[in-house]
Amino acid sequence: MTIAPKIVILGAGYGGLMTALRLQKLLKRGEADVTLINKHDYHYLTTHLHMPAAGTDHHDNAWVQITELIRKSKIKFVKATVTEIRPAAKMVMLEEKGIAYDYLIVGLGGEPETFGIPGLKEYAMTIRSINSVRAIRLHIEYMFAKYKLEPHRTELLTFVVGGAGFTGTEFIGELADRVPELCRSYHIDPSLVQMYNIEAAPVALPPGLPPELADYGMRVLERKGVIFKLSTPIKECMQDGVLLGTGERIKAATVVWAGGIRGNRMLEIAGFETARGRVKVDEYLRTKEDSNVFLVGDCSLVMSPEGTPYGPTAQIAIQQGHNAAINLVALIRKRPLKPFVYHYKGTVASLGKSSAVGVIGNKRIRGRIASFMKKVIDIRSLYLFGGLSLVLKKMIFK
Amino acid sequence: MTIAPKIVILGAGYGGLMTALRLQKLLKRGEADVTLINKHDYHYLTTHLHMPAAGTDHHDNAWVQITELIRKSKIKFVKATVTEIRPAAKMVMLEEKGIAYDYLIVGLGGEPETFGIPGLKEYAMTIRSINSVRAIRLHIEYMFAKYKLEPHRTELLTFVVGGAGFTGTEFIGELADRVPELCRSYHIDPSLVQMYNIEAAPVALPPGLPPELADYGMRVLERKGVIFKLSTPIKECMQDGVLLGTGERIKAATVVWAGGIRGNRMLEIAGFETARGRVKVDEYLRTKEDSNVFLVGDCSLVMSPEGTPYGPTAQIAIQQGHNAAINLVALIRKRPLKPFVYHYKGTVASLGKSSAVGVIGNKRIRGRIASFMKKVIDIRSLYLFGGLSLVLKKMIFK
Repeated sequence: MTIAPKIVILGAGYGGLMTALRLQKLLKRGEADVTLINKHDYHYLTTHLHMPAAGTDHHDNAWVQITELIRKSKIKFVKATVTEIRPAAKMVMLEEKGIAYDYLIVGLGGEPETFGIPGLKEYAMTIRSINSVRAIRLHIEYMFAKYKLEPHRTELLTFVVGGAGFTGTEFIGELADRVPELCRSYHIDPSLVQMYNIEAAPVALPPGLPPELADYGMRVLERKGVIFKLSTPIKECMQDGVLLGTGERIKAATVVWAGGIRGNRMLEIAGFETARGRVKVDEYLRTKEDSNVFLVGDCSLVMSPEGTPYGPTAQIAIQQGHNAAINLVALIRKRPLKPFVYHYKGTVASLGKSSAVGVIGNKRIRGRIASFMKKVIDIRSLYLFGGLSLVLKKMIFK
Repeated sequence: MTIAPKIVILGAGYGGLMTALRLQKLLKRGEADVTLINKHDYHYLTTHLHMPAAGTDHHDNAWVQITELIRKSKIKFVKATVTEIRPAAKMVMLEEKGIAYDYLIVGLGGEPETFGIPGLKEYAMTIRSINSVRAIRLHIEYMFAKYKLEPHRTELLTFVVGGAGFTGTEFIGELADRVPELCRSYHIDPSLVQMYNIEAAPVALPPGLPPELADYGMRVLERKGVIFKLSTPIKECMQDGVLLGTGERIKAATVVWAGGIRGNRMLEIAGFETARGRVKVDEYLRTKEDSNVFLVGDCSLVMSPEGTPYGPTAQIAIQQGHNAAINLVALIRKRPLKPFVYHYKGTVASLGKSSAVGVIGNKRIRGRIASFMKKVIDIRSLYLFGGLSLVLKKMIFK
């Protein structure tokens, strides 16, 4: 009798969790010893975080208990923080112990990329976890409450979102929906509230949208009160606002940074070749340095056939997790591996309540229909992870 | 036909509102022209503010629309901020106009007394209005949310309440009830939370309680996690905590100051003799300088037969409003005035949920019975202002 190979999955984000769920389906009993390690005992729906961050949905709709999704007989779950990866020793170090592996799947996600802009780390908030979005939601409402006590401080009602990509625009769309509600609750004139979306690139909204759809999205958000400043880098973030590349200063008590994602620093330290912390993987999602280490999600870097890297999205992470699981099973069964090919299905960005904009396949959609499709996509990804019961539990039907 | 005398009431706190409500009952149609002026269009239940401040009750249970309580045919309500009182001209200045009066009733309430302690005005929050308690409630929860992002900063979970009188102890009692709830919600170990009640005097809880009841109250709060520091003045308040008279520093991200109340500065400016901004009134609650000006509530100073000033409470304010209304009617009808005599009915201080301590008449009460009596008192004062409908609307039956 041979000992079952040890598979260790780091991170229960879209990539890591999908790897675990597919393995649990594909592996026969005793065929491998699979451990899933995650910092929290829950998975969070990153693509949904813009809503609880703005306060338009409860944060409980943005996470799911990991043990509700995995079967204990197939996958062992360990709640722990990974401190180091040691590929040479085939070990992963946790805070209190080390764990040996035969195959490692790293889906540790990304970190906010601040591009060295001074002050962002200290003064800007980022939409990156349940904990961070709870803090953002409270911070926003707290500013309204504070303004009532210090009505000369209009910067309390000024909100700056840095970055007009997926997260930035989806968040500011929700914020624009939440503001009238807060103004009513605190008896504040809505015209006093200022919402800026500042972007260094000349375009807003997620990459991949045709220019006329991006324009449409901007118009929808502008009608809700969002002020866009494109081609405008943030030069510095201070406690009381931002300094723009143009020399303009915006006094704001709230700065949310959604300007970019880089990979996990642990991967650089582990000795893998990275670009902005993302590891360049081979066609099977393995590191060039070590064929026993797979990467999925935001900390991996996959090149498109055109030679440009795919952006970090839930869509690609889920597909990577699927592929990694298939190849792990193939390795164990000594069968040939299957190269990872990304099937881009489209991009739909919400613009707050009852509007969205996007492309599905070749079809361009916008407005209410796009908003409906966005919900369908959210439902689909919930279904993928937890079946109908999860859909019913977490999905908000508004 | 003579012109009806103009009565102007400043402030719709316990004293001013009670004056208005009694006048509305006692005056015949056309007998006087009564105007009630208040900064907000609502009266707030100051004695209830410690609950929404801690987050144990909704702030909507702590205010009532003034126009719901007064009859327009009898009392004219003006929402405005008083900027100056000019007794010589018999005028009250609002932000946009002046209003003439024949009789003036001032019930403008107090301001927090900081005794010149540096930093308190800048860094401490005070329980003094609906707006301020909404800010305190959000601030408290925000600290828990922030702690999850910066778990090395234990000062985020340290709460300092300055002053262990009525407001200070009632607030910290509610806070002690709220903390376990917040700890559960944020998955924080409750033992990390520190709650200090710091008092310069050697005793805690409202004055007028016998020492053994004050001791009982302290024990109840201590069992809930409150740390008392008596005979300990606060020397300075900084952004990150307080420096005590003993030299000890407490790092805390939240400081709530409930150490005292002084009168309204407008009264000093108007030329009345004041002690800590409270005007020493004659036996009919009139200023010594001007017999057309009455004072009710926290901005008046009434001496007890023992020669010490009565503390500012809702109880005395309500009785003063009652007396002022009777004497205004007497003045109009040219009848003799009735001296104000304070009928002290007792003191009951809540100690959070399901406990309180106090004296009613000669009877000492504590625990659940006292908590029940506290509710009865709250119901009674609501009933006094707005009848049964107000009781049903605002009272929480827990």
